[in-house]
Amino acid sequence: MKIIVLGGDGFCGWPTALHLSQAGHEIIIVDNLSRRNIDNELECSSLTPIQPMGTRLRVWQEVTGKSIRFIKLDIAKEYVELRDLLAAEKPDAVVHFAEQRAAPYSMKSPRHKTYTVDNNLNATHNLLCAIVENDQDIHVVHLGTMGVYGYSTGPKIPEGYLQIKVVSDGKEYPHTILHPAYPGSIYHMTKTQDALFFQFYNKNDGVRVTDLHQGVVWGTNTAETLLDERLVNRFDYDGDYGTVLNRFLMQAAVGYPLTVYGTGGQTRAFIHIRDTVRCIELALENPPAAGDPVHIFNQVTETHRVRDLANLVSGMTDVPVQNISNPRNEADENDLVVENEKFLSLGLNPTTLSEGLMEEVTEIAKKYADRCDESVILPRSMWTQAKLSVVDEDVSEADAG
Amino acid sequence: MKIIVLGGDGFCGWPTALHLSQAGHEIIIVDNLSRRNIDNELECSSLTPIQPMGTRLRVWQEVTGKSIRFIKLDIAKEYVELRDLLAAEKPDAVVHFAEQRAAPYSMKSPRHKTYTVDNNLNATHNLLCAIVENDQDIHVVHLGTMGVYGYSTGPKIPEGYLQIKVVSDGKEYPHTILHPAYPGSIYHMTKTQDALFFQFYNKNDGVRVTDLHQGVVWGTNTAETLLDERLVNRFDYDGDYGTVLNRFLMQAAVGYPLTVYGTGGQTRAFIHIRDTVRCIELALENPPAAGDPVHIFNQVTETHRVRDLANLVSGMTDVPVQNISNPRNEADENDLVVENEKFLSLGLNPTTLSEGLMEEVTEIAKKYADRCDESVILPRSMWTQAKLSVVDEDVSEADAG
Repeated sequence: MKIIVLGGDGFCGWPTALHLSQAGHEIIIVDNLSRRNIDNELECSSLTPIQPMGTRLRVWQEVTGKSIRFIKLDIAKEYVELRDLLAAEKPDAVVHFAEQRAAPYSMKSPRHKTYTVDNNLNATHNLLCAIVENDQDIHVVHLGTMGVYGYSTGPKIPEGYLQIKVVSDGKEYPHTILHPAYPGSIYHMTKTQDALFFQFYNKNDGVRVTDLHQGVVWGTNTAETLLDERLVNRFDYDGDYGTVLNRFLMQAAVGYPLTVYGTGGQTRAFIHIRDTVRCIELALENPPAAGDPVHIFNQVTETHRVRDLANLVSGMTDVPVQNISNPRNEADENDLVVENEKFLSLGLNPTTLSEGLMEEVTEIAKKYADRCDESVILPRSMWTQAKLSVVDEDVSEADAG
Repeated sequence: MKIIVLGGDGFCGWPTALHLSQAGHEIIIVDNLSRRNIDNELECSSLTPIQPMGTRLRVWQEVTGKSIRFIKLDIAKEYVELRDLLAAEKPDAVVHFAEQRAAPYSMKSPRHKTYTVDNNLNATHNLLCAIVENDQDIHVVHLGTMGVYGYSTGPKIPEGYLQIKVVSDGKEYPHTILHPAYPGSIYHMTKTQDALFFQFYNKNDGVRVTDLHQGVVWGTNTAETLLDERLVNRFDYDGDYGTVLNRFLMQAAVGYPLTVYGTGGQTRAFIHIRDTVRCIELALENPPAAGDPVHIFNQVTETHRVRDLANLVSGMTDVPVQNISNPRNEADENDLVVENEKFLSLGLNPTTLSEGLMEEVTEIAKKYADRCDESVILPRSMWTQAKLSVVDEDVSEADAG
């Protein structure tokens, strides 16, 4: 297959591009390098020494003999260039990672909120609109999030579609609907709005879409990024982009208390980056048929309560846990029971926490600990104005801790 | 109350601004004049001789002694100006009409699709984001559309929220959810995405919102726009902006066959412009309390099948009905049963078709018939590429008809 990877310089995009290239597909990476620019803005950087795109692709060619092309393009702003690229390259599929993907960053300030909305919604819409303008049949594989579901409406969150009975005037009418959206941040909200783009373009124009509702990704490297240190994947540990488990591993590696937001009673879904790239591959190999509705998969392998994870890492490393005020506006405790049969039935063989955790601590977090800037670890984005005053206190406490 | 009317130069916005001013409220109109600029683009204009904003406001002052201010601003693009305006003026409420509101225009071309998405979503988000940045308690009244519902999920479409039972593993779990969205055009889709903005800002920041799901508006004048001919409201009859009933009235007035799309079996909900302005007033007088979820009203007074309307107008005027291919991608026939108890219980006394129709034909359509450009009446926007080829045939047939 010929595949364009939008956002192929990012944490999920880069290892996906390599994995698909290694599997024999022709890959073109499109990226505006926004994630690197945001590092500049936030004055932090990947714990791992990620290389510039030119080096990455040169090394990949050296190591594997395979070539990946790179095109710098802002798909949210450069519609005509995107359309012409699709028309010229005629890809079989596009994998769409090209969105601002951190919930804390999306809540940081009005400028960050408006940027996330403007960027994410125009990016997704431009892609769909360009495919239709070109009258192409391109399979769109989109990285969504478990955060679209918001809360459990039954014992198990289904894969995208919910079986319901509408209750009206005492009668009941069976229907299947897109799972109701109840997002917890501006970032998550844009993904619920993406789902409506997909539904409309699928219904009106027959665009074939697979939407992957992914859990929190942990881990760093895949088989391909391990081939040479210059291919290493990004590892974020800062308060905005560091996902919870990777942040704990980093804190453990440098002996910094494992900061748990609120009670830590939030249950989250997790997946290792090695399984992410395998899931994308499975989605590409199993596209919707013409006329199918949007395919939706839950891209998740385990669920855990945050405090349980903190205690697990603490037990492995003797670094203590510290509770701080929750910067987010959410329930203290939540359950999360998720169906994930679809990828398992397609052959996904998950990497479990118990297998991968220690490797991450020693191979990544400890190895690169000298690159850590502890001043960026604590949360710096508050969900509401009322929470802004509380955080300063927490930060000084934790710094002392 | 002090009220800012965003989009106060448009078909619904202008008579709303006058109605609220007449009722004693302090009104500021904010508009970027996009609707007049789109007339320039489409090479058509209002059947009624609408005056420039300067003239409109001068006449209003002369006739009533009341003054309305006007600020030219693009709220989708000028976030800082919008924020500072809200901070300086401290309105009690904002009525938000500032979106591209024609389904055919939103489907016209890729440029029109991307414009509608970019404009409508950023406009709504900027408003909410600015209110939160300013830490203000402003009631937002938003003009939505019946088109968010898409199809009946039970015998009656409720006012925004649906009572359901989730069916999972053989058990049933009761829930109340936002009615599932199933929009029929890019325009309608943006309104379903607006609903997710409102849900999020209401949940996270407590913003008080009333979302009005309005039917197809017909009629032209209100008590206020009738006070002087220079206050006259806009009347659109072209294939992009002319709503179905007003278009039929215009066609009847000039003896042009009443063009019905497809079988005319589509059922639509309707409301007279006089009831629109009264509904907005009722919504402003009955705001959500602090902590309330988004209030949703169906702003609708009657439902009719399109072919029945065509036959009604044809019977009154002896102008024949002509069926042409449907430019839209929709079911040939649909039912639409809608709850509208909320506004009726607040005191709305609807203008019925039987009362108002002949007045429109004689007072507006016939009176200004010499301003009609018949070449703009037929549909010029097709929902899919496949439909583009069919329309040329229809146009030449109908021109000859």
